[in-house]
Amino acid sequence: MPATCHPAQTHQNHDKSFEHTAREAVYHAIFGRRDVRSHFSPEPLEDAVLARLLTAAHHAPSVGYMQPWNFIVIRDMARRERMRDLFFAAREQELPNIAAERQALYRKLKLEGICESAVNLCITCDRSRAQNSPLGRWHNPQMDLYSTVCAVQNFWLAARAEGVGVGWVSILDERAVKRELEIPAHVAPVAYLCVGRVSQFANRPDLEEKGWGSRLPLPGLIMSETFGGSGEAALKDAVLRGFPSLRS
Amino acid sequence: MPATCHPAQTHQNHDKSFEHTAREAVYHAIFGRRDVRSHFSPEPLEDAVLARLLTAAHHAPSVGYMQPWNFIVIRDMARRERMRDLFFAAREQELPNIAAERQALYRKLKLEGICESAVNLCITCDRSRAQNSPLGRWHNPQMDLYSTVCAVQNFWLAARAEGVGVGWVSILDERAVKRELEIPAHVAPVAYLCVGRVSQFANRPDLEEKGWGSRLPLPGLIMSETFGGSGEAALKDAVLRGFPSLRS
Repeated sequence: MPATCHPAQTHQNHDKSFEHTAREAVYHAIFGRRDVRSHFSPEPLEDAVLARLLTAAHHAPSVGYMQPWNFIVIRDMARRERMRDLFFAAREQELPNIAAERQALYRKLKLEGICESAVNLCITCDRSRAQNSPLGRWHNPQMDLYSTVCAVQNFWLAARAEGVGVGWVSILDERAVKRELEIPAHVAPVAYLCVGRVSQFANRPDLEEKGWGSRLPLPGLIMSETFGGSGEAALKDAVLRGFPSLRS
Repeated sequence: MPATCHPAQTHQNHDKSFEHTAREAVYHAIFGRRDVRSHFSPEPLEDAVLARLLTAAHHAPSVGYMQPWNFIVIRDMARRERMRDLFFAAREQELPNIAAERQALYRKLKLEGICESAVNLCITCDRSRAQNSPLGRWHNPQMDLYSTVCAVQNFWLAARAEGVGVGWVSILDERAVKRELEIPAHVAPVAYLCVGRVSQFANRPDLEEKGWGSRLPLPGLIMSETFGGSGEAALKDAVLRGFPSLRS
């Protein structure tokens, strides 16, 4: 990538906003990002691309500039098969907790691409990294986990721009993951990701396509001043006018 | 925004990646995003812009398509002054937990823009929203909080593209925030954000500028197969070659 990637040098309007097409590209990444399970293609993923995605992750905000993350790259197919088996076991454990009338649908859902994707990535959070300067964590010790999730989302959006699919596998027993990946006690595995080139990015989220759920109307989620507070009529109107192409 | 924002319609290369300039714009948002405290300008924030940012947040991934978030828009200055007082009180509580030699620096840091920003936003997580279909949360009940953080990061990156600054205030007592914003027991306030137009986006993170910390070398955070596993030499080389302009 050329030096023009530096924030001070490109795309900037006088009011600090991006030019129209650049701004549109950011929204394109946000709206076109998918939790990919079914559409991984067998191509390998170039190190240069994975390196850019990790750099994006590493530029996430972190509480007290703690940067608590590590990135475990998992390529070995035997290990990935064991991880997939952990997923299958976890799915069986989760099943009885799903409402009875939805269990058949649950069983049909494709919820991971552990062995089909080019590479797996575990993004972890080292809870002890800033032991002597826990700025911003005293009241909410979870902030380091939240910082790590910001890194996951940076990775995911950069991946969309690179044409790379990402799927977050959350149906896993954390203790089993820690054993398999030899993760020490003070480190939390925050996200287990399947990463790779894809045959397509679906137009809608899988769980919407398959009838598991639908997108909630955004105006109903906006509140004014306090939780449940009515108001913000003009803002809610603006939401409905905002992106005509997103209305389904 | 025109209909061309739809993911299927713009910027796509044959291999699903964005065209060069669009991809660069996404990295620009990621690398140029700042946790803004000092540079808010007094201009108001247009509803149309805030609406787009909320739409971006609402398109975050969520576990089991739960969409657990709500958005409380706080404009009332009396309430914001009370929130700022909560911050001051929390900062005093955190101070004794900071290493003695860093307390003077800590006191000098500007850590919030609650009253100077155009608007405040509390992004919450309704822990009960998917009670009958907790897909993907049985093993890790925190996944709904993580989904909400993904919404925060979407909001933050879209804001950068719109020329809008965002600062996450984490030095707050959660119970006090819940009282002030009348947030019920089953809802968690995940992020309290200051949002508004800015006079500048700094070239480097504030905490780096002020000598609180520096960016860790990314290759040292990459591991192979297991935690602490050496390897991935080619990937680490690619990281160092990736974005020359980012080397400091």
